[in-house]
Amino acid sequence: MEIRKLLKNNFLIFDGAMGTMLQRKGLKAGQLPEEYNIQCPEIIRDIHRKYLEAGSDIITTNTFGANRLKLRDSSYSVETIIENAVMIAKEAGGEKKVALDIGPIGQMMEPIGTLSFDEAYDIFKEQVIVGTRAGADIILIETISDLYEAKAAILAAKENSHLPVFCTMTFQENMRTLTGTDAITMVQVLEGLGVDVLGVNCSLGPKQLYPIIDKILKFATIPVMIQPNAGLPKIINDETIYDLTSEEFSQEIKYIADKGVGIFGGCCGTDPNFIKAVKEKLENLRPKELKNKRLTTACSSTKTVILGENVKVIGERINPTGKKKLKEALKSTNIDYIISEAIKQKETGSDILDINLGLPEIDEIGMMTKVIKELQSIIDLPLQIDSMKSDVIEKAVRIYNGKPIINSVNGKRESMEKIFPIVKKYGTCVIGLTLDDAGLPKTAEKRLEIATNIIETAKNYGIPEENIIIDCLVLTASAAQEAVMETLKAIPMIKSRYNVKTALGASNVSFGLPERKIINATYLALALGCGLDAPITDSTSPVLMDTIRAFKVISNQDKECREYIDFYNRGAKEDKIKKEKIEKDL
Amino acid sequence: MEIRKLLKNNFLIFDGAMGTMLQRKGLKAGQLPEEYNIQCPEIIRDIHRKYLEAGSDIITTNTFGANRLKLRDSSYSVETIIENAVMIAKEAGGEKKVALDIGPIGQMMEPIGTLSFDEAYDIFKEQVIVGTRAGADIILIETISDLYEAKAAILAAKENSHLPVFCTMTFQENMRTLTGTDAITMVQVLEGLGVDVLGVNCSLGPKQLYPIIDKILKFATIPVMIQPNAGLPKIINDETIYDLTSEEFSQEIKYIADKGVGIFGGCCGTDPNFIKAVKEKLENLRPKELKNKRLTTACSSTKTVILGENVKVIGERINPTGKKKLKEALKSTNIDYIISEAIKQKETGSDILDINLGLPEIDEIGMMTKVIKELQSIIDLPLQIDSMKSDVIEKAVRIYNGKPIINSVNGKRESMEKIFPIVKKYGTCVIGLTLDDAGLPKTAEKRLEIATNIIETAKNYGIPEENIIIDCLVLTASAAQEAVMETLKAIPMIKSRYNVKTALGASNVSFGLPERKIINATYLALALGCGLDAPITDSTSPVLMDTIRAFKVISNQDKECREYIDFYNRGAKEDKIKKEKIEKDL
Ligand SMILES: [Zn+2]
Ligand SMILES: [Zn+2]
Ligand SMILES: [Zn+2]
Repeated sequence: MEIRKLLKNNFLIFDGAMGTMLQRKGLKAGQLPEEYNIQCPEIIRDIHRKYLEAGSDIITTNTFGANRLKLRDSSYSVETIIENAVMIAKEAGGEKKVALDIGPIGQMMEPIGTLSFDEAYDIFKEQVIVGTRAGADIILIETISDLYEAKAAILAAKENSHLPVFCTMTFQENMRTLTGTDAITMVQVLEGLGVDVLGVNCSLGPKQLYPIIDKILKFATIPVMIQPNAGLPKIINDETIYDLTSEEFSQEIKYIADKGVGIFGGCCGTDPNFIKAVKEKLENLRPKELKNKRLTTACSSTKTVILGENVKVIGERINPTGKKKLKEALKSTNIDYIISEAIKQKETGSDILDINLGLPEIDEIGMMTKVIKELQSIIDLPLQIDSMKSDVIEKAVRIYNGKPIINSVNGKRESMEKIFPIVKKYGTCVIGLTLDDAGLPKTAEKRLEIATNIIETAKNYGIPEENIIIDCLVLTASAAQEAVMETLKAIPMIKSRYNVKTALGASNVSFGLPERKIINATYLALALGCGLDAPITDSTSPVLMDTIRAFKVISNQDKECREYIDFYNRGAKEDKIKKEKIEKDL
Repeated sequence: MEIRKLLKNNFLIFDGAMGTMLQRKGLKAGQLPEEYNIQCPEIIRDIHRKYLEAGSDIITTNTFGANRLKLRDSSYSVETIIENAVMIAKEAGGEKKVALDIGPIGQMMEPIGTLSFDEAYDIFKEQVIVGTRAGADIILIETISDLYEAKAAILAAKENSHLPVFCTMTFQENMRTLTGTDAITMVQVLEGLGVDVLGVNCSLGPKQLYPIIDKILKFATIPVMIQPNAGLPKIINDETIYDLTSEEFSQEIKYIADKGVGIFGGCCGTDPNFIKAVKEKLENLRPKELKNKRLTTACSSTKTVILGENVKVIGERINPTGKKKLKEALKSTNIDYIISEAIKQKETGSDILDINLGLPEIDEIGMMTKVIKELQSIIDLPLQIDSMKSDVIEKAVRIYNGKPIINSVNGKRESMEKIFPIVKKYGTCVIGLTLDDAGLPKTAEKRLEIATNIIETAKNYGIPEENIIIDCLVLTASAAQEAVMETLKAIPMIKSRYNVKTALGASNVSFGLPERKIINATYLALALGCGLDAPITDSTSPVLMDTIRAFKVISNQDKECREYIDFYNRGAKEDKIKKEKIEKDL
């Protein structure tokens, strides 16, 4: 099933609510709707038929809560329920497609709840395997509020089934999901994980979803699906009634279709009349094509950092190389120290945090897992997973709740063979270092050549350009002075040829010289002038951040110099004292 | 007489010594050789004839010391002596050219001696007027040790005669003239003043001149003339004997000719045999063509600063705008204060000093004259003459002992009409500001357009590109933030189109913002990265000089980081104390 091909000519219409229909058929509160698949399959079959008659192209199995946790008190197994549900839908649907419905597990995940990522994965995996085997055509993960849960579900689907994966999340009026994910972050993470369709379901009525839909369409590069409720709920005589008529609903859907959404259905409060009205409204219309936005992003679960819009700082301090205190913290599993380093970097202006825990004496995978779990519960900055070991990287990327950057791949074949499959599978960005078997090159031209090799090889793995961030690497001025400017020259050369962004860990340039920060700050300014998007640097160093803040003023990124003026006027005296203290500590 | 045309096919041979010949004819020590022009003209005529027979293309009048100071005890006037001398030479020469010989005045000029620039000028002017009227073909200013005296003589020649001007100076074994001028500085200043031929005479034997000649040929873009002595002098029986035979002499001349010198003659100890030998050696050979080096330079009398080789700092502190202390110093004619500011700038790394003394309350011309005289006697940095008034500029440039930069001209027709004649006449460089009647432009393209207008208009005045230094001017970030990068963009645009260098007074960018030095240092780094050759800045500001020193390391100008390491290792602690003090003072 090639969604994009189908959408070329027609909108795709799912069905409407199952729950609402079952309540009308006598489902009691507290009763498990999924048991109907066995207890009264004809009711379910009948609902499917009504939706098909109304015009649904795809019907959804009655398996929203068919997971082992929700069914723990049921006398039916997950397997029995899902198998029956798929069979009923297929019988009803005939030629039409059947979507295996997978709703949220119903328990909060770590760190708010106790459900671990691996447990969630296993629960979803069971649903996916049974549903796929039973003959579903699509896996529809829906009504998800927690991005982390969506990630577990999508991975379970992708790793245990060949079916297309649709995923829709549920937003609140504050434009975020219950656990704080905003539209752009959902788009970045879900697209990265390789879903075929993403969108919103439930949440609100269509009209209330407009601003969220606008955001999604601004960033999405895959088809978007919207299944709103039948308006907003009102409680009348202890009953929940939704405030839209099917005609009103379908008018709003038509408006959303004009924005660029291609796949529709209904959620709470909708019934076959709503689907019929939608079908009629969209008859003879064609979905708009989405333009590919090609953004380079890193995301935590609640924050997306776009590289290239503005200088973004990648904090480099969580890396034991040359840092005695951090080494000790790692050896003694002193996570608090690492967290304090992270907070310090966030407070001083880091946008993304590089996390390197590589010490030969420690269990790097274990430590990385712990640190990521802790950090993502405390700090909202996206992380950059930095390790020499691809198994550490894969594990970290897998359990990370967001879209991280991987640091790094390089131009060696072995490196690319290990790293690119991870980048592709988890939809991360990756830092591409311009070095290869011949080492770190001296010329800009050779850097371009290696970058070209990295980018073109990545494409063969299905990794788009925008997920590559090239680090042109600088040699030390004391050892290879004539090569120092070559790094800077390479930046615009590479950026003009490819839609990639650039990072640079530039402090190496001053190695072995006195007053290193003077060289570092000047080199940083020059690199920013050449188009460097993301310095990998120490945001706790005032001189370096001074340079970045000044560059943002000069390059008109810091509009009306507001950040700059705020920063330096805000208790200028106190800052100075603090600054001098920090510089002494360095 | 078009020297270059003549040199296309042949070397030009002057004559040899007059003094040596006259001593052989019985001239006593203390006797004025110039009196022979009246007392025994046949001896002079005979010497000319011998040289002509030996092959001289040009003979030199017997007027070396024919100035009113040397002749003050003579019964003959300057007029009588020169008129006779020219007449004798013309009679002897027939078709051949006659060069009016002008030697040094014979008294030290200010500040070492008491002879003022204007007095020197008047003395030379008298010789020039008489010689020209008497029918000389060339004015040959020779055996000059003091660049300032050469400048007076050349101006006197150019302003009072239409004849071609040749000027040769006399060097010591330390590669400098008696008053400290080196070869490159001589070339820059004399070419700037518009001489037709420059070179060296007297001094040493040909072989000892090789290194000086190499330097001259490295920088000269006009024909070069060499008239060496007949080797080195030895005192034998109270007589001065030179150690080369005519054959040896001519072999060395041949070697010099191969280097690229096109005009020869002899000085002390040479006679017609030497000229004959030279003529034979160069027979059937053609002079080499000199390549135009197109350097942008500013010179004091002893130091040439080449723009474009390395970042050069133009010290901006001697400018009363916003400087209370300097304003007071100007009002009370406190020259010592100005000198202390100049020394401070030199010590902290300025390569050139901008001098602006514009205060409405003072006599700017008088003050400028005083300050320049004082500064050029104390400090060896080239000066940049900065005034709103073209009469102040002309006077300053005229009495300056060197090749200054004029600050500034701009794209307005009125400005160019006033300033370019001065630039052309005195052979200075000039800062071209990219503003015109429409004000200071916002875009890089408009800056290029104004720069183009300035450069092309300058060419119409005979000013070569390399004497234009474009200042792209920056608007303040607080008022025109979107235009701030345009200035930087303009630098490579202009430099790639024209062989001009660029200056920039960048501190304006931070006007109105807090912590201005942070913006200034970052902007400076960016400008240097864009190819800025000469920041006009405050070298007493440590952060700005830090940036420049770091840039020199990064751009491989400071080879092996030597300056950088020296500077920051040299008593790092003391520097820090000093630095903090200075920053507090700012
Ligand atoms: Zn719903
Ligand atoms: Zn629903
Ligand atoms: Zn001589």
